[in-house]
Amino acid sequence: MKLMRVTDPDDVLKIIEENFSPLDSETILLEKAGGYTLAADINAPENIPDFNRSTVDGYALMARDTFGAGEGIPAMLECTGEVLMGHSAPSISPGQCCLVHTGGMLPEEADAVIMIEDTEVAGAMVQCFNQVAPGENVIQKGEDLKKGDPALTKGSQLRAPEIGLLASLGITAVEVHRRPRVGFFSTGDELVDYSRPELKPGQIRDSNTPALLYLAGQAGAEAQYGGILPDQFAAFLKESKAMLERVDLLVFSGGSSVGTRDYTARTMQELGKPGLLVEGISIQPGKPTLLANCGGKPVLGLPGHPVSALNIFKIFGGATINRLSGRRENIFKPAVKATLARNISSRSGRTDYVRVRLEKAAGEIKAVPVFGRSGMLRTLAEADGLLVIPPEKEGLTSGEIVEVEPWE
Amino acid sequence: MKLMRVTDPDDVLKIIEENFSPLDSETILLEKAGGYTLAADINAPENIPDFNRSTVDGYALMARDTFGAGEGIPAMLECTGEVLMGHSAPSISPGQCCLVHTGGMLPEEADAVIMIEDTEVAGAMVQCFNQVAPGENVIQKGEDLKKGDPALTKGSQLRAPEIGLLASLGITAVEVHRRPRVGFFSTGDELVDYSRPELKPGQIRDSNTPALLYLAGQAGAEAQYGGILPDQFAAFLKESKAMLERVDLLVFSGGSSVGTRDYTARTMQELGKPGLLVEGISIQPGKPTLLANCGGKPVLGLPGHPVSALNIFKIFGGATINRLSGRRENIFKPAVKATLARNISSRSGRTDYVRVRLEKAAGEIKAVPVFGRSGMLRTLAEADGLLVIPPEKEGLTSGEIVEVEPWE
Repeated sequence: MKLMRVTDPDDVLKIIEENFSPLDSETILLEKAGGYTLAADINAPENIPDFNRSTVDGYALMARDTFGAGEGIPAMLECTGEVLMGHSAPSISPGQCCLVHTGGMLPEEADAVIMIEDTEVAGAMVQCFNQVAPGENVIQKGEDLKKGDPALTKGSQLRAPEIGLLASLGITAVEVHRRPRVGFFSTGDELVDYSRPELKPGQIRDSNTPALLYLAGQAGAEAQYGGILPDQFAAFLKESKAMLERVDLLVFSGGSSVGTRDYTARTMQELGKPGLLVEGISIQPGKPTLLANCGGKPVLGLPGHPVSALNIFKIFGGATINRLSGRRENIFKPAVKATLARNISSRSGRTDYVRVRLEKAAGEIKAVPVFGRSGMLRTLAEADGLLVIPPEKEGLTSGEIVEVEPWE
Repeated sequence: MKLMRVTDPDDVLKIIEENFSPLDSETILLEKAGGYTLAADINAPENIPDFNRSTVDGYALMARDTFGAGEGIPAMLECTGEVLMGHSAPSISPGQCCLVHTGGMLPEEADAVIMIEDTEVAGAMVQCFNQVAPGENVIQKGEDLKKGDPALTKGSQLRAPEIGLLASLGITAVEVHRRPRVGFFSTGDELVDYSRPELKPGQIRDSNTPALLYLAGQAGAEAQYGGILPDQFAAFLKESKAMLERVDLLVFSGGSSVGTRDYTARTMQELGKPGLLVEGISIQPGKPTLLANCGGKPVLGLPGHPVSALNIFKIFGGATINRLSGRRENIFKPAVKATLARNISSRSGRTDYVRVRLEKAAGEIKAVPVFGRSGMLRTLAEADGLLVIPPEKEGLTSGEIVEVEPWE
């Protein structure tokens, strides 16, 4: 029997990076752009802010008029009025000030703002009990961004701060990489649609599909479902070919038998060059994973067991969607620090993903392994996240501080 | 001048928990249920799996027929055929076996499966070079879930594993807590819609709104935008009242002046009892935050500076949306471990959120503080996440290992 050639998970990520490229770009409205990746640099078309703004409620003045002022010897300035929000500020002369609100515009001649709590009004005069330095309590014109400066660069992911920044520049549409379309097929003669109320002996419901469609959406892709493919090579190939023309990433899931795996591998070789890149990953659960490059498009064959399928799609399907979306490599993985509650053994030379439940007890977070086979989806539903045991380790000891990657 | 009474951030979270309750429930299709929270327990209507399944490709047999077998002394069993995927298994008698694929059904009489790589076919006979124990390579009927057992409990968030688990049970619709509707108003006479191409002196674009609408969607809420409210109390109150009837959470953003803040606070007192709960939070940035309970509905007044507004909405708007959605308290916060690249000072008695950029250098992740005022949105766009300095600390030292909460 032929042994499976397995690839290290980090190498699989490199293969994805090297084989596939960001999709073409499109222009979309800023209000729809959250989660997309910029396909072009954006320079600031104007200054932000476009005028000197106060950062406090107070009096705009010339800083030198307050020099030497203090608790017992206030500077006395004439108040010429108020800066109305959203309007130009009036002029002031030396010895004068005007009331300004947070965010309000400073008069051309003013270079600082004294906070209202450091003043007292006496008729038409304002007593300043503090000295202020030039620039104090002011955001200078162009301080956040200068006209022509790079505001955001190609490859930036549009999170809330980026969307706000672009909105502040009056930018209402952006050029982004198109969202990847992912096509899913289920495979295996034992599978029936999950909406089937009654099962015949030997049948099981295709539970992976709705779970994978949701994961694809979470990863920022548009998912299409092609149905359950029969275990017949000709039909398998024909349907796959048609789907691959419509999508940017094709995913097979469900077939756990060697036969189905063989169909999938043969199909991948037929769908386009160079074909199969990975025929197994040194990872647990999820070893029998297939990855191909079919005419420039990625095709992923997930392992049959539900836990493995979801784990593999999250890691490698997610990395592929990131690559197609033009996102920069995620150099950091957020994790929850926890104390391991039991010993876990693992085989060296293989990356192990252990399902764990997180429990808070006495101010401490404990990671409790959820044991069970990778065919048992309940074990993943009971887990809050995954604990990664790298290939050089042979297990972990109870009481160790570990990092748990949450499943969200 | 009246001093602001500030509340500790953890106490604000408790106030949210105590004042508000999960929304009423609705029934939705499983394929749309990702991200929702279950409003009722679900028991398994059947066994998973509903038959004894093989976990490998091999031969189903009676384990005792292999006892004593080994490399040199194989057990010889008669092969009666193959279990077709999705079909009942044929019967076997002692001394017999049948070919079964991964996921295939075991014959009633079989209690184990020998892996195909431990066998060799010799005519109609199969040589078994290993002994197998009863139950080996088999998932027992009901091993994942027994009919009637609790599958998922009320309050479970529906992630991919939960969706898969419910699909495997043939469940196509679920009872979940309704998704919160969040209404947003912008406030401040200096604000104009962000689509305005040309600004007059003193005007700024309402950059918070598109950023907040995106954050609300990320948190699992449906956002509605009510426009920019004028700084006139009567209009302010009338529009807020009308919006509050349509939504589950009302949010004011944009007004950074004391005047706008006062309008917002007065409005909160008028909108319903008990009114204002929080009039400031001991947090930086974001201190001038307002939170009210108006007739059972939460109303949040965000601070005016854009960075503060986004930070506060993410933390406390997010916590409120979680509460209304019926999600269990999130006991763990994923973070990225990094080495602090510079000293940071902070004031004790206040929780500081410091914007940091993450950089990978020489296999180490460095957290580099992004300095700049909270009025400067660019500083948040440059940051990968936030570093929390708890109130008991007076700053952090370069070289310390810190935990960074990513902004996604």
